[in-house]
Amino acid sequence: MRRLLLISNSTLHGSGYLEHCKDAIKDFLSDQVKTVLFIPYALHDRDNYASSARKAYTEMGYGLESIHEKPNAVDAVKQAEAIFIGGGNTFRLLKTLYDEKVIEIIRQRVLEEGVPYIGSSAGTNVATVSINTTNDMPIVFPPSFQALGLVSFNINPHYQDPDPNSKHMGETREQRITQFHEYEDAPPVLAIREGCILHVEGDKATLCGKNDARLFIRGKTPEEFQPGADMSFLLEWKKSS
Amino acid sequence: MRRLLLISNSTLHGSGYLEHCKDAIKDFLSDQVKTVLFIPYALHDRDNYASSARKAYTEMGYGLESIHEKPNAVDAVKQAEAIFIGGGNTFRLLKTLYDEKVIEIIRQRVLEEGVPYIGSSAGTNVATVSINTTNDMPIVFPPSFQALGLVSFNINPHYQDPDPNSKHMGETREQRITQFHEYEDAPPVLAIREGCILHVEGDKATLCGKNDARLFIRGKTPEEFQPGADMSFLLEWKKSS
Repeated sequence: MRRLLLISNSTLHGSGYLEHCKDAIKDFLSDQVKTVLFIPYALHDRDNYASSARKAYTEMGYGLESIHEKPNAVDAVKQAEAIFIGGGNTFRLLKTLYDEKVIEIIRQRVLEEGVPYIGSSAGTNVATVSINTTNDMPIVFPPSFQALGLVSFNINPHYQDPDPNSKHMGETREQRITQFHEYEDAPPVLAIREGCILHVEGDKATLCGKNDARLFIRGKTPEEFQPGADMSFLLEWKKSS
Repeated sequence: MRRLLLISNSTLHGSGYLEHCKDAIKDFLSDQVKTVLFIPYALHDRDNYASSARKAYTEMGYGLESIHEKPNAVDAVKQAEAIFIGGGNTFRLLKTLYDEKVIEIIRQRVLEEGVPYIGSSAGTNVATVSINTTNDMPIVFPPSFQALGLVSFNINPHYQDPDPNSKHMGETREQRITQFHEYEDAPPVLAIREGCILHVEGDKATLCGKNDARLFIRGKTPEEFQPGADMSFLLEWKKSS
């Protein structure tokens, strides 16, 4: 029943907030959904963040309620028609999901009850197995890096190819993901460039959006995928024991 | 008694491993030290890493023993004349320092017995209050982000200024550090660009090396400092309560 729209980034260079993925969101939610539950935990200023998100969803024809304005977070998730978790800092987001005790209920509603889930950037990271492949700064300590586990692999959003002209000596993104894969049982990492979206319907996963993805699997050569590619094989990935 | 040499990065563009900081290391260790204890925990291939570090230190006229080749890590720290912790992944490094139970003994030997400490990149991150301001990918979960606490502020190594021509929409380094400072009691962050070094002797801290640093203090405008600047005021920073 699982329905996910996992977006690399909310704002694409040269366009407004969620503008590059408006059509994908409208197709995904269709007219079945009236109101989206927004989870603004990845940013410090939740009121301001909810206001931006509300403006974007209103323009798309949906109502938006922010979980931080509701009396009880767990009840808000229980009643949600659809869930949207926005970007910001992934550590802050995941810690707050644990603090508010909404991890299990989100997982249950999405995986067992088919509530549509939209994630962008940090909201996409927390939809996966773990936040081990976020790009964010660890500004706060969450009780675990394990995340919602709505899919059995990891995602690296905002993926950047190495810049051959760079004089910076920090690791490239590819080197960082390769270091993650030095650990046994590290799941595949789908690296989605800005503009790229992964759309999951049950056991079918499709790449869409305006940019390509690069797939890293431990011990294998990375592989490129274009919008339209069927990524369903990734949903079947299981830990080797 | 504390003596620290905290280096932004081990390899500067266009030069070899530790080449840009060889003179600083030789001045720091002088002829008082014969053999350095190397801690290679930040990288997966410790043998290979120790071999590179040994080559560089031998060329500078010092012996090098790697902690991973010694029968007992705690005993190795107890006997060390000087300690060098190299770069790599800060999460892997800090987790291993905890796993090997060497956090307390390193702190004691450096702060109470004046054993010289050299850190580079990840080795500089773990010398500070916490790894909350590392740039690395959280590929493994350490039991805490609290680090050695050899100084009472944080460092961000490999600091990069915003690129005005970039079309990438991920946060700039300055935005990331500013998000860290949205938390109360977050310590100052000294952001050291590649080539920059912080030299600490007791209660005196001096910027040196080939590049500038940018200092971020919660609620204040960031400030620039050039090599030669006296940074001793930072050592006096205490949590406001």
